[in-house]
Amino acid sequence: MAKRERPDDEAMPGERRQASARHEDRYEDRADGRPDDRIDDERMDEENILKPEYVRSVRESLEAGDDARVYELVEPLHPADIADLLELFERDERHQLAAAITDLMTSDVVAELNDFVRDDMMESLPAARVASIAEQLDTDDAVQLIEDLDRDNQRAILAELDAEDRHAIESALAYPDETAGRLMNLDFVAVPEHLTVGDLIDFLREDRALPNDFFEIFVVDERHHPVGTCQLSWILRTPRTIPLVDVMKRDQTLIPATLDQEEVGNMFQKYALISAAVVDESGRLVGQMTVDDVVHIIAEEAGEDALLMSGAGEGDINEPIRDAYYSRVRWLVANLGTALIASLIIAAFGAAIEQLVALAVLMPIVASIGGNAGTQTMAVTVRAIAMNQLTRSNTGRILLREMRVAMLNGATIALLIGLATGLIFTPLLGLVIAAAMVINVIIAGLAGVLVPVIFDRLDTDPAVASSVFVTMITDSMGFFAFLGLAVASGVVG
Amino acid sequence: MAKRERPDDEAMPGERRQASARHEDRYEDRADGRPDDRIDDERMDEENILKPEYVRSVRESLEAGDDARVYELVEPLHPADIADLLELFERDERHQLAAAITDLMTSDVVAELNDFVRDDMMESLPAARVASIAEQLDTDDAVQLIEDLDRDNQRAILAELDAEDRHAIESALAYPDETAGRLMNLDFVAVPEHLTVGDLIDFLREDRALPNDFFEIFVVDERHHPVGTCQLSWILRTPRTIPLVDVMKRDQTLIPATLDQEEVGNMFQKYALISAAVVDESGRLVGQMTVDDVVHIIAEEAGEDALLMSGAGEGDINEPIRDAYYSRVRWLVANLGTALIASLIIAAFGAAIEQLVALAVLMPIVASIGGNAGTQTMAVTVRAIAMNQLTRSNTGRILLREMRVAMLNGATIALLIGLATGLIFTPLLGLVIAAAMVINVIIAGLAGVLVPVIFDRLDTDPAVASSVFVTMITDSMGFFAFLGLAVASGVVG
Repeated sequence: MAKRERPDDEAMPGERRQASARHEDRYEDRADGRPDDRIDDERMDEENILKPEYVRSVRESLEAGDDARVYELVEPLHPADIADLLELFERDERHQLAAAITDLMTSDVVAELNDFVRDDMMESLPAARVASIAEQLDTDDAVQLIEDLDRDNQRAILAELDAEDRHAIESALAYPDETAGRLMNLDFVAVPEHLTVGDLIDFLREDRALPNDFFEIFVVDERHHPVGTCQLSWILRTPRTIPLVDVMKRDQTLIPATLDQEEVGNMFQKYALISAAVVDESGRLVGQMTVDDVVHIIAEEAGEDALLMSGAGEGDINEPIRDAYYSRVRWLVANLGTALIASLIIAAFGAAIEQLVALAVLMPIVASIGGNAGTQTMAVTVRAIAMNQLTRSNTGRILLREMRVAMLNGATIALLIGLATGLIFTPLLGLVIAAAMVINVIIAGLAGVLVPVIFDRLDTDPAVASSVFVTMITDSMGFFAFLGLAVASGVVG
Repeated sequence: MAKRERPDDEAMPGERRQASARHEDRYEDRADGRPDDRIDDERMDEENILKPEYVRSVRESLEAGDDARVYELVEPLHPADIADLLELFERDERHQLAAAITDLMTSDVVAELNDFVRDDMMESLPAARVASIAEQLDTDDAVQLIEDLDRDNQRAILAELDAEDRHAIESALAYPDETAGRLMNLDFVAVPEHLTVGDLIDFLREDRALPNDFFEIFVVDERHHPVGTCQLSWILRTPRTIPLVDVMKRDQTLIPATLDQEEVGNMFQKYALISAAVVDESGRLVGQMTVDDVVHIIAEEAGEDALLMSGAGEGDINEPIRDAYYSRVRWLVANLGTALIASLIIAAFGAAIEQLVALAVLMPIVASIGGNAGTQTMAVTVRAIAMNQLTRSNTGRILLREMRVAMLNGATIALLIGLATGLIFTPLLGLVIAAAMVINVIIAGLAGVLVPVIFDRLDTDPAVASSVFVTMITDSMGFFAFLGLAVASGVVG
């Protein structure tokens, strides 16, 4: 949310009308008067994606140097869609586009930009300009704006800010990355206990410095500790004379400022929160988190597991190529290590393979299916751990459950590959590959549950670390079980 | 959100006080008067997970048949935590626990239960009991409650509902699964255009049938088409005499009832929505979606890609074993098919392997690293498509970007494995494996972008379908490039 820069924010309610009216005009100009401009068939497709033809016309006008036309094309877009448009462009084009639409590059647009794109754009602006954008943003967005910039750049921007904003941002930066303290918003409405509903409404009507959008009033005691919370809908439905303490709910979810963002996301989901108070160690109300910011966290945390398990790091298409290379190649090198272990096992059975080349033909099947089965179980386990569904209280039961699935899967695949191998090669080789397959799929199930559970207990993100180990286990055991059984059973030798 | 069953819901504002006070008492009984019961050190750990000792004591009391003690232990929990507790238990224990705490099994608890657990519990209840729970829920939660039950069960429950609820649920069920129409809430506040702020507040104070929590007022014209929207905070900050049309915002995000839930989630994220109006084909306001319901959708959609890409289906630890088996084994059989293709390629080079067993030792390395590189790129691409970041407007640029990363990765890994192979075996074999590695990592990058992009254009979920194809390509090409180059270069033969 970026609200403070809106023209109506510092205005009296009477003045707000004009701001609203201005807002309307902008939209009424360009349509048949229908208010639902977000169903914008001209520029957006039915999935709410900017149409390629529209993007092309912006690009062509930009290349032709027709900045007036570019402005005209971009002006009707919502700030979030302007951010999307910037992201679609290449780096150079993007800077050119930003220059052509300077007026439209509001803090709303900046707040909606992808992190990598925003950092890149901010680095190319003078500190004073970044500071003036930061001043228009909510603290949480301002912190996001500068937290990833380099130290010198950060200091230069902070120096340009007025004392209050600088203090707010510095205190947020003092909390660790990805905690509630870093992400909270310092603009919230807190009132003392003794008010009535009427007092509160009068206070809200009079105070100009309040945030524009808020969903909840926090009631605090004299030490600024939260004692209750009021949804705005409760206030609107209660007569003016009723004391606030009789309307508010005393049991509320408080978020410690040091809580990790993943847990913040889980709490918002679990308790269906719209906003929540953030408290420091002494229990003082220091900020609030609102759900519109938390949805980004929830989406990021839920989506990143797929990327982390594949070893794609941040996995953002806007990540600089060098960063993408570093994070991915590290993973590939780690996997090279596990592949070498598998190769050593194969090498140990070199004589058997020389004797019966069918072993070389069949052995990747056992390893590959084991790897797939392990990845399936691992994905389920990692997700359940992230959602707090898999805890110490039910690990045993889930392990048992996964073993049962693994046995069913192992038996099915073993039957298929055993029959095929038996028919094409020899019945004994069919038996060998079937047995190896059952063994490997069961090992895959065990590893798929236990590896992430163990990493979680060691306070290591299971999504990051598990995959290399699970693959190593299923590859090595696949080759070992198949080649070992082949030798032991007398298929060769 | 499940609100209608709250005791204060149908009450006058004056009566609500008592309900609130009752709520307070419950919590003040058990603590030192601090309101922040959600920091519940006795039962919850710092990650807001039920402590194993607590779960164990509930289980032991349950096994000992001490239902009174079970009730006493569970009673202080938040409904969402009671739902978590039920999920931690095995099926039989769970039904036993539910029987011991019947009073606490409110619709709030039912709404928070995992889908599979809820379906199982509902199936064991008589239709009349399920209907009475459904009546206490918001329409969206009531729909969720019965949509997955079998047809007969559904009909029996619908028959027990009163006409209004039945009609609401039936009209929601008429929309396709996972669309806004299925998920929307029919309880919302819509008012005509001619009101003033004061009129609105009076209406809200008087009307008993309004929902308890709401965040936005929809202003509609005489055809019930939305013409504007008001945040409650704007109303609270505006003098009573001002007309509503001067406070409301005319440009609002309207959600077509047939929109897929993934796009609904994207819209809430992109436009930082708290709630939004759902409209039918003629543009009439038919429901609203609120962010506390949408966060579940966002988390589900973002999290399911990891599960879908691994072939783990729903991937829920509460999914019945048979369902988990069916969805996973299908995937393993598909992968068995791709592994067989790879085996055919190896078999074609049987003579070369017989001559030089080192080929059998090294060939899985090329396939395995290619598979990993392909999975990385695919995970990034699938995520970018899901987030609407990768569109027709920038596919070419992203493909180029991924090619550059692939070339860097391929060169690095090729150097490492080439040197090692050159030293251990022969320099020529080192060159062969290095060249095969570069080729396979680049093919992996191409496949990792193009396969999901093509599936997306074909309107097939890229997360589901891509993985089998990418693996097939990287496995086959890995073996083919390595063994083919070995033969062509004269390492063997």
